[in-house]
Amino acid sequence: MVENRDRRDRLRDAAIEVLAGEGGRGLTHRALDRVAGLPEGTAKNYFPTRDSLLRAAAERCVERYWSDLQQAEVHDVDGLLTLLRRMIDRALTDNRSRILAYLELHAEAARNAQVRETLARLTRADLDLHLAAQRAAGLPATRHGAATVTLAINSALTYLLTQPPDVLAAYGLDDLDAFLARLVSTAYPPA
Amino acid sequence: MVENRDRRDRLRDAAIEVLAGEGGRGLTHRALDRVAGLPEGTAKNYFPTRDSLLRAAAERCVERYWSDLQQAEVHDVDGLLTLLRRMIDRALTDNRSRILAYLELHAEAARNAQVRETLARLTRADLDLHLAAQRAAGLPATRHGAATVTLAINSALTYLLTQPPDVLAAYGLDDLDAFLARLVSTAYPPA
Repeated sequence: MVENRDRRDRLRDAAIEVLAGEGGRGLTHRALDRVAGLPEGTAKNYFPTRDSLLRAAAERCVERYWSDLQQAEVHDVDGLLTLLRRMIDRALTDNRSRILAYLELHAEAARNAQVRETLARLTRADLDLHLAAQRAAGLPATRHGAATVTLAINSALTYLLTQPPDVLAAYGLDDLDAFLARLVSTAYPPA
Repeated sequence: MVENRDRRDRLRDAAIEVLAGEGGRGLTHRALDRVAGLPEGTAKNYFPTRDSLLRAAAERCVERYWSDLQQAEVHDVDGLLTLLRRMIDRALTDNRSRILAYLELHAEAARNAQVRETLARLTRADLDLHLAAQRAAGLPATRHGAATVTLAINSALTYLLTQPPDVLAAYGLDDLDAFLARLVSTAYPPA
């Protein structure tokens, strides 16, 4: 059973890597076996259809998002800004493949109800996380304030992964600490 | 020459429809010929490689974005809100395929420098448009304020196309007029 779970997770991680590196077009059973270093036929055995592959990738994105959140401890606005900065830094490094796969899966979600439902869990959790972190920071947090911050940060992540430096500078994304401080104080103006 | 341009545009529009409907995986020369209603071989003749197909789709997105902007006339904040609401409404109806193709191309931009450069023109123009419209509305517009609004609206568009109703409600996207009014007054608090 442990080995089964391990193989399953290796395949799901491989699905994220393949989506990030080659897009939905590259997501084949053969590619997954190769990237996961497993015998040909393994991916087909665990995830027989293309839809089940896409759903597996989306579920793995959500799981990895969750496991990434455990460390967060916030007591004030500085702590909140540190958390947000760390989230972005990790999105551009350790979590880069997951965020790129997530972009790819979002395009897929418009066509595929199961992928849509899986990603929706992440989108809900994302808002709840921001709201809880803003409360923990002592801000007068509201769902609307949290929505503004969450929406702006998610576009910012997409741009950081897909836009050239001059565009990032135009959006103020060349100085992430300043960007985040401004965003939070825009959503919650100091009294 | 006129006929050539017409065929070229029909193929590029077909590329947008195919990307929106089937994703990057469906973007083949044969699919473009079929959707454009042109003889087999036409797409291959105009856009010989897959990269040139992707670039053509990205360029057509940018062109259609521009041609869509001509009508904008803004004199006050109400006019700005009306413009933003119309942009979103059109994104969900007439421009739905273009916005979905744009999502798909963004995922591609992370891997493909030419697609990235083409989309960057749109991302730059988008910020400039918001900034100009905010100025025309009489707001104390700044690049940072415009960036916040642009980033939040772009995530909102993605969510409107890919998330279920309860998620939209959680983000305040079930009432778009209220969402936009709040967003603009968050970026530019009334004195």
